[in-house]
Amino acid sequence: MGRWPAGAQERLQEAAIELFTERGYERTRVAEIATRAGLTERTFYNHFADKREVLFPGQDRFIADIREAVVAAPAEQAPLDAILAAFTAGSDWFDQRREAAQRRRRILDAHGDLRERERAKTAALGEGIADALRTRGVCDPAATLTAAVAVAAHQLAAARWSADPRHGALKDHLRDSFEELHRTARTW
Amino acid sequence: MGRWPAGAQERLQEAAIELFTERGYERTRVAEIATRAGLTERTFYNHFADKREVLFPGQDRFIADIREAVVAAPAEQAPLDAILAAFTAGSDWFDQRREAAQRRRRILDAHGDLRERERAKTAALGEGIADALRTRGVCDPAATLTAAVAVAAHQLAAARWSADPRHGALKDHLRDSFEELHRTARTW
Repeated sequence: MGRWPAGAQERLQEAAIELFTERGYERTRVAEIATRAGLTERTFYNHFADKREVLFPGQDRFIADIREAVVAAPAEQAPLDAILAAFTAGSDWFDQRREAAQRRRRILDAHGDLRERERAKTAALGEGIADALRTRGVCDPAATLTAAVAVAAHQLAAARWSADPRHGALKDHLRDSFEELHRTARTW
Repeated sequence: MGRWPAGAQERLQEAAIELFTERGYERTRVAEIATRAGLTERTFYNHFADKREVLFPGQDRFIADIREAVVAAPAEQAPLDAILAAFTAGSDWFDQRREAAQRRRRILDAHGDLRERERAKTAALGEGIADALRTRGVCDPAATLTAAVAVAAHQLAAARWSADPRHGALKDHLRDSFEELHRTARTW
């Protein structure tokens, strides 16, 4: 399951992360990103609505993949297990891009407008998962609440994975975070 | 526990909600909001950084109040109970302003940039609650995960309260949502 599209979008993101790291996010123009990627500004705008969006390539596809995987999970699988399996299925792809993910994380953390965009994507992920759970017959508010904790556990796993000095695989951080979620939920 | 400050800020918010409802958010200028409230544009900017912020008066104060209440809750109270009590303590204030809250909700729902600002405030609420739980001795990741579900349950309660045709009190919607959270968590 490819997470971010290969080709132009991935090259543009790599170029953007390089330039944002070298010169700063504000001082980098879209035309420079395109040039570094060996593409035109026009191609950039064919793929991304604006400079912020280049740091979220394939995010809509990622959300759609997770949603489909949750809907397609075995009927007897518990909601949180289905969600964990969906996140795990595509996690190798991220492991192969850990360093770029770390540099991207540092850029996002340093810019309020990028964090706002990230929160909008996170909200869309939660809505996609809640929708998938409803399709599986989970009623509201259980669907909404379960999606919210799953997104929180996913964020926890992603943060730990990105900061892990031992370079543990994302799937292991996902498993640990969901286990801790189960443990925590038993104390509520 | 006052949620939004009285006086200038509240008058400016009331004027803004009136004007946004009458003419639309985009077509309303800050100077017009100030005039409707019987104040100057300068006073507006003494209270709010921009036009978006007028729809979130006292939000930082609200977050600080919730945080303090969670820290000050009895040591034997379970984290989610302490959070529910904190939200409940100031809920009458919102009941007295239900209609303005409903009009505000409609304005927020119709504007992506206002929803982005709202998500930033929601994220800050979650961070405030997680911090308060850590002060109570709850370790991470339990603090982060518990704060995330509490915020989700609060959002659920606020949405139901705002849409309730029978005008049920916010504290009753909060109690119901947290009960449903407990019920849902037992299925995880």
